[in-house]
Amino acid sequence: MRRIEDFREIIDNYEVVFFDAFGVIKNYGGLVPGIEKTFDYLEEVGKEYYIVTNDASRSPAQLAESYHKKGLTAIAADRVISSGMLTKEYLDLKVDEGIVAYLGTEDSAHYIDSSGLHTLPVSAINDDNIDSVNALVFLDDEGFDWFSDLNRAVNILRRRNIPAIVANTDKAYPLSVKDVSIAIGGLAGMVENIVGKKFIRFGKPDSQIFMFAYDLIRDYRPINKTEIVMVGDTLQTDILGGNKFGLDTVLVLSGNTLPADAQTRMTSTGIVPTYVCDTAVIK
Amino acid sequence: MRRIEDFREIIDNYEVVFFDAFGVIKNYGGLVPGIEKTFDYLEEVGKEYYIVTNDASRSPAQLAESYHKKGLTAIAADRVISSGMLTKEYLDLKVDEGIVAYLGTEDSAHYIDSSGLHTLPVSAINDDNIDSVNALVFLDDEGFDWFSDLNRAVNILRRRNIPAIVANTDKAYPLSVKDVSIAIGGLAGMVENIVGKKFIRFGKPDSQIFMFAYDLIRDYRPINKTEIVMVGDTLQTDILGGNKFGLDTVLVLSGNTLPADAQTRMTSTGIVPTYVCDTAVIK
Amino acid sequence: MRRIEDFREIIDNYEVVFFDAFGVIKNYGGLVPGIEKTFDYLEEVGKEYYIVTNDASRSPAQLAESYHKKGLTAIAADRVISSGMLTKEYLDLKVDEGIVAYLGTEDSAHYIDSSGLHTLPVSAINDDNIDSVNALVFLDDEGFDWFSDLNRAVNILRRRNIPAIVANTDKAYPLSVKDVSIAIGGLAGMVENIVGKKFIRFGKPDSQIFMFAYDLIRDYRPINKTEIVMVGDTLQTDILGGNKFGLDTVLVLSGNTLPADAQTRMTSTGIVPTYVCDTAVIK
Amino acid sequence: MRRIEDFREIIDNYEVVFFDAFGVIKNYGGLVPGIEKTFDYLEEVGKEYYIVTNDASRSPAQLAESYHKKGLTAIAADRVISSGMLTKEYLDLKVDEGIVAYLGTEDSAHYIDSSGLHTLPVSAINDDNIDSVNALVFLDDEGFDWFSDLNRAVNILRRRNIPAIVANTDKAYPLSVKDVSIAIGGLAGMVENIVGKKFIRFGKPDSQIFMFAYDLIRDYRPINKTEIVMVGDTLQTDILGGNKFGLDTVLVLSGNTLPADAQTRMTSTGIVPTYVCDTAVIK
Repeated sequence: MRRIEDFREIIDNYEVVFFDAFGVIKNYGGLVPGIEKTFDYLEEVGKEYYIVTNDASRSPAQLAESYHKKGLTAIAADRVISSGMLTKEYLDLKVDEGIVAYLGTEDSAHYIDSSGLHTLPVSAINDDNIDSVNALVFLDDEGFDWFSDLNRAVNILRRRNIPAIVANTDKAYPLSVKDVSIAIGGLAGMVENIVGKKFIRFGKPDSQIFMFAYDLIRDYRPINKTEIVMVGDTLQTDILGGNKFGLDTVLVLSGNTLPADAQTRMTSTGIVPTYVCDTAVIK
Repeated sequence: MRRIEDFREIIDNYEVVFFDAFGVIKNYGGLVPGIEKTFDYLEEVGKEYYIVTNDASRSPAQLAESYHKKGLTAIAADRVISSGMLTKEYLDLKVDEGIVAYLGTEDSAHYIDSSGLHTLPVSAINDDNIDSVNALVFLDDEGFDWFSDLNRAVNILRRRNIPAIVANTDKAYPLSVKDVSIAIGGLAGMVENIVGKKFIRFGKPDSQIFMFAYDLIRDYRPINKTEIVMVGDTLQTDILGGNKFGLDTVLVLSGNTLPADAQTRMTSTGIVPTYVCDTAVIK
Repeated sequence: MRRIEDFREIIDNYEVVFFDAFGVIKNYGGLVPGIEKTFDYLEEVGKEYYIVTNDASRSPAQLAESYHKKGLTAIAADRVISSGMLTKEYLDLKVDEGIVAYLGTEDSAHYIDSSGLHTLPVSAINDDNIDSVNALVFLDDEGFDWFSDLNRAVNILRRRNIPAIVANTDKAYPLSVKDVSIAIGGLAGMVENIVGKKFIRFGKPDSQIFMFAYDLIRDYRPINKTEIVMVGDTLQTDILGGNKFGLDTVLVLSGNTLPADAQTRMTSTGIVPTYVCDTAVIK
Repeated sequence: MRRIEDFREIIDNYEVVFFDAFGVIKNYGGLVPGIEKTFDYLEEVGKEYYIVTNDASRSPAQLAESYHKKGLTAIAADRVISSGMLTKEYLDLKVDEGIVAYLGTEDSAHYIDSSGLHTLPVSAINDDNIDSVNALVFLDDEGFDWFSDLNRAVNILRRRNIPAIVANTDKAYPLSVKDVSIAIGGLAGMVENIVGKKFIRFGKPDSQIFMFAYDLIRDYRPINKTEIVMVGDTLQTDILGGNKFGLDTVLVLSGNTLPADAQTRMTSTGIVPTYVCDTAVIK
């Protein structure tokens, strides 16, 4: 592990940069101050970049728009790769017909629409249509009643032997300096534990999201894994996943991993990034 | 393992009978038909019995009353031993002062009242009183708003390094022939998983509830573990816990374990009762 | 899920077939009787196929040779994709210099040789060279002394904060009709549990081995995931992994999953293949 | 949590003291220096004490003798309560006849001898006597060949649906300042994971060992849980178990928990002792 002072030094050594979103580019208060300088520099020197995020609550277009509203206009929708996109690919490839029931907002459900499939909130599943439900997707922690719909999700999965897909593996996300909020990955873990079946999870640290991004690049140019660097604030997702996929990795200390804890956490987990850098903001 | 036709044969061989409640004495529809014959017989032959239950939603008095309403008038409050009683003992012994925050109904909170402690629902905890919260108790899946109060419970446990007590280890309970409901043990497991701390769990299969019952008996008479039999419908709680405590055990097939699955489940879990009997109803 | 009588029917619908090895092509007694007919047919109709295996005990060349010795001469080394190859890719990309310590036979270590790295058995690590150890790899359950070398592996990982790579996720493998043997994945799980660090695992059900095979094909021809079918005998590895990667899947009943248990296991795990077929032998 | 300077202050407030052995009274180098002063003081003021240990490798008499040899002559065999004693109680109560197979030394097996049972090492189990094996006990990490006997243990448990008892829950134990050794609890966890059955574990933090000690005291005098204090060096076993049983607890910093880590570990685990004291040696 090498300590790097200026993030620019890292950029200069790679062809493509993968960024985690939360804790790297933005936090609960808005953008990480100064982060637009990094994206200006990337444009200037003509480096490619992608946002590789476990946020499945909105479509890439909506996620890009949310950056624009915050003042980071550089990020286009086609630069955003979310675990929700892998969920959509799964449904396209593996579920032919019938109803896909979901837990999440209408927005989150919109972009998993797949031809031939009917997307319905869990609350709309009843004795009349349950036999047509061919998949259940955990998309977002909002948009449904936790008591009635989590119980309903458990019983759908007891009655129907169908795939359950978790579009976001995160258990919780920061809500403010002090507080967190339970994420859909946390709720899905409880349901999985209760029904005793094996769920399918997309999102870092799983390799499939990195491959999705890697394939997007290879569609228009040759690239080698050694030319890509993954930047993230969380050892267990960004760094572990990037390492395993064979990428160099940067741990930044602007989010989940505090400067005071970084060394202890690397030692206790055994997850070590290629570099540690205070922030992804260039100097 | 011995297959027994008439439950009476088992009773005749022991001094004391421990019964699980759900799936043995009652189910979602009311009493197990004919079960009052068993309790009449116990009275007649002068055998002692206890209901040893993971139900922490109500006090022993309220639980006994619920049997009376259903027509089983034999069961007195002092025959009911619940995991909630161990929670109360823990608070009495280990928490001296301040607030005990809880998730559950007001009824469930009533009987954990302990001298010197102030019992408050999680929804009543705020920035003004959070520093006085000295324990958090998971009592029942009802009586609170899942979205706001589960998030609140997570954040209380992140800010306060206090014991979290789970008064019911069950993950789900049957609601009807087809459906189950998520139990407080399932919700607590999710919160534990998110905050990463070690919770304290009371209830079968943990030995402490068996010891509580065993001690109650020894208060007024000598008894040996070989003279007690535990009757339950669930291998992972009633039978595993009874076996480990050193008791003989009876698996009845009137609840969680269906006659068609009994052998497969014993083989796959390695949990084997002393006897298997269709029902706790005597012939 | 569709029940298929003749495996030929499945072959005819896909461009490429991925086969698991153990329980599909061979078992403890040798080849699955008649399996050469399937490979003759694949040659005849010009379908591509790959053996996708969690066996990291030998190189692809040695694995291919072992088929030849058993009489299945069709399988060339370049058709064999093992989790050991991903381990080698990881070392090539992520470990620059120093010693790679391993648990396994010399044969298993041979093919993870990577330029610039020095491969040494765990038994050869001592106070003089431990500071140069930059990775520890779990390759095979044979070739070392379990008592001394498992203890040594634990202590290497306590002293050095380095990646631990598990080249085979399987916990056990069949040794005869009745008995199994503990596999290196089982031993690695124990060591991981004791040192409390996060290990990197390659092999089904993880997606990365499927990507590796998928990329090999795409190097010389265009292919779509819908044109590939994965054939395996184990729900938790072959079928779960294939499904998640977006492939159609075939469960064969000639190995880990017995005909009598197939339905129960699909229901209890929630893992459902596209097809179930008695065997990969064509009629 | 209160910080206490002199351990004597704690002794003075309780009727009975429970001591963990390793890290409190002794360590890999011998006795904790000065610890005999503590036991002299206990004698002097007439306080009772017990050694409550997860060490099942030897009988209480042999454990006491090992203290005598090290110069701590105060400790009599009847003051030692080990998880092995609970294993013996289990066998006495729950296994009537046949063979008890074990992993461990002959010494460790000697004291689980139970009338009517035949105790045999796992290595002595074969096709002729396997059908008489009615329990398998994990006693010690020494006294057997790890490769052949761990594999044998797995296959015994696959063929016989019998209880597997783990007499020591510890995963590892310290061997020197720098190194640890895998304990029988770690090996048992691997076997349990592979065979997929539910094992029975005795030893801290489980309540049953505390009950056993508590019952021993009550056999000859009345005692209240508030009059007992548990002293240990490990949060996850001594302190968690003592707290749950309702005892006051002391974390000493002479073993597993280093002074520099104590606060971090209490915060990350949520396990908080009543007192923290550098050592159990009085001043």
